[in-house]
Amino acid sequence: MTVAHEALDWLRLYRSENVGPATFFRLIERFGTAAKALDALQDLAGRGGKRIAPYPKDAAERELAALHRIGAQLLLASDPVFPEALLALEVTPLLTVLGDPSLLTRPSVAIVGGRDASLNGRKIAHSMAADLGAAGHVVVSGLARGIDTAAHQGGLATGTVAVLAGGVDHIYPPENATLHAAIARSGCVVSEMPPGFVPTAQHFPRRNRLIAGLAQGVVLIEAKVKSGSLITARFALDQGRELFAVPGSPLDPRSAGCNALIKQGAMLAESAEDIILALDLLPGLKAAPRPPTAPIAVQDAKSLSDAQKSVLSLLTVTAVTVDEILRQCQLSASTLSLILLELELAGRLERHPDMSVSLRA
Amino acid sequence: MTVAHEALDWLRLYRSENVGPATFFRLIERFGTAAKALDALQDLAGRGGKRIAPYPKDAAERELAALHRIGAQLLLASDPVFPEALLALEVTPLLTVLGDPSLLTRPSVAIVGGRDASLNGRKIAHSMAADLGAAGHVVVSGLARGIDTAAHQGGLATGTVAVLAGGVDHIYPPENATLHAAIARSGCVVSEMPPGFVPTAQHFPRRNRLIAGLAQGVVLIEAKVKSGSLITARFALDQGRELFAVPGSPLDPRSAGCNALIKQGAMLAESAEDIILALDLLPGLKAAPRPPTAPIAVQDAKSLSDAQKSVLSLLTVTAVTVDEILRQCQLSASTLSLILLELELAGRLERHPDMSVSLRA
Repeated sequence: MTVAHEALDWLRLYRSENVGPATFFRLIERFGTAAKALDALQDLAGRGGKRIAPYPKDAAERELAALHRIGAQLLLASDPVFPEALLALEVTPLLTVLGDPSLLTRPSVAIVGGRDASLNGRKIAHSMAADLGAAGHVVVSGLARGIDTAAHQGGLATGTVAVLAGGVDHIYPPENATLHAAIARSGCVVSEMPPGFVPTAQHFPRRNRLIAGLAQGVVLIEAKVKSGSLITARFALDQGRELFAVPGSPLDPRSAGCNALIKQGAMLAESAEDIILALDLLPGLKAAPRPPTAPIAVQDAKSLSDAQKSVLSLLTVTAVTVDEILRQCQLSASTLSLILLELELAGRLERHPDMSVSLRA
Repeated sequence: MTVAHEALDWLRLYRSENVGPATFFRLIERFGTAAKALDALQDLAGRGGKRIAPYPKDAAERELAALHRIGAQLLLASDPVFPEALLALEVTPLLTVLGDPSLLTRPSVAIVGGRDASLNGRKIAHSMAADLGAAGHVVVSGLARGIDTAAHQGGLATGTVAVLAGGVDHIYPPENATLHAAIARSGCVVSEMPPGFVPTAQHFPRRNRLIAGLAQGVVLIEAKVKSGSLITARFALDQGRELFAVPGSPLDPRSAGCNALIKQGAMLAESAEDIILALDLLPGLKAAPRPPTAPIAVQDAKSLSDAQKSVLSLLTVTAVTVDEILRQCQLSASTLSLILLELELAGRLERHPDMSVSLRA
């Protein structure tokens, strides 16, 4: 199998219906390669209760061609330069990359915040990014208006990564076209999505998880309560990232989210120095060594169907941990894992970041 | 002995040279009454190495008369309505009080901060004080310009205590004359100092210790680095008070002290609710039950002089704890305590809040 084939198979598997990052890695664990997982996909989903077809080969080929045309590349989790921080958390098995992917393996700090940021907020984001850059940190953000834009601008000279919810060539907001081009040239624009992809609201939380996953620390500036930045903050905590917030006056609603996070334990940050000092005290982010992944034999259909019934009887729309199911279902871990995979591929199961699962409503 | 005599004796003892709050309470412990301590004062100081005279009786009588004239009263630590919080920490054995002393025994929160406060800072102080007041908390502050003034104004309707570094009738800044009169009428103005006393820089830290001592929690608003408010914050921590700080933008130097305190562990407060919630989780401030105070026999002069030499040999300008001296000096705790008292009255010894002592340079 050539590398080009591998890329195509990974892309097809990840773009197949109901295959999220966790499912992708479970499939590779179980079948050894993406090609073999693709072969098994229809049967697995069928046993889960729904027919799904693998993502078409020609569509994946068109995506690779489109990436090539815009000068972007596909980075796989099996690639040695794939960011270890993302790998450890199984945030995504692949990234489309416009620009210099080596930035993704350097120490990084994410700076995110409000779109309607004040002049002061943008000043703080800019100088914090520039100072973090001068200290050797890559600045990660989301290319949005306001704080994100100021953070990228501050980090441009030393290295900045823009993580997009759409394709790497989908520029939004339009006024950031010049900044997008500058980052593609001297920094790096990344996305999980295909070129040309136009995101909707549901794709932003996934992008935010990627931002937090790429960075060792996440800094919030002028984040309102119930903002997208607070979702990034939640991911940062879930992913074991250090969380920082820049405080503001209680009279300024733009800082309410940041102040609330500090009350709940986020570190108060006034300057890049605060962040650098705190991160220096933390260990680096390395992937845990993976257990060897040997293909696991598929059991006979009858016993699997009985097993599926017993697992389904334990599941509801309320999330339970996989460990808990394992203790109650009288099945081996391997069989339970297969059944969950089948249900997930059939679109009947939802996985949550804390290793719990629930039935889709 | 009548109560009037007791007040006179306490006043004379506390106003005597080198008698601070800790010494005062040690003297009462040792001699039982202020009158007996006054009788012994000259001998004790003499053995410590310096002649001091007790504070003149007529001067103390003039102070009581002056208090009477301005409608103020003297509150002794032996009085059942003396604030328990102050008693437990031996902050002071007496207070001069203009207004309603019953406010001193109610749950209290101190609000202090910068004199050059912004309009927003003063707004926050005012509304926080009003909301704390509505929830049953007395607002304690220092009658200074800026935050203190706004805090008193916000707490005026529900009860506020102004703690002055000068006498209770020494109004500073002059523009607060109306506020001073209003607090004296519906709240309470207190001081350790005699009426008419004009404070100098050295008297403010002592006043700040009193502010922190009177309150269950201390809130800082717009406190700069190296400000008097930060001294109050330090006392609050030393005295086991809950410390709160209202955050501000890193670009506003007026909030630098508050932000620094939050980094160091002070609770971020945006509203009275934050403070009330936190204080509700804390136990009330009660004085520890005191051991019975029986007069202790004074040893003969020869053995005391030898003992003093051995204690002096253990003391330097660097502070050591009394426990450490006790372990090394081969003296009883009672004898060591007496010798330290003598040295302190002679102006040769300094006591520190953490129960350590050092020689004066």
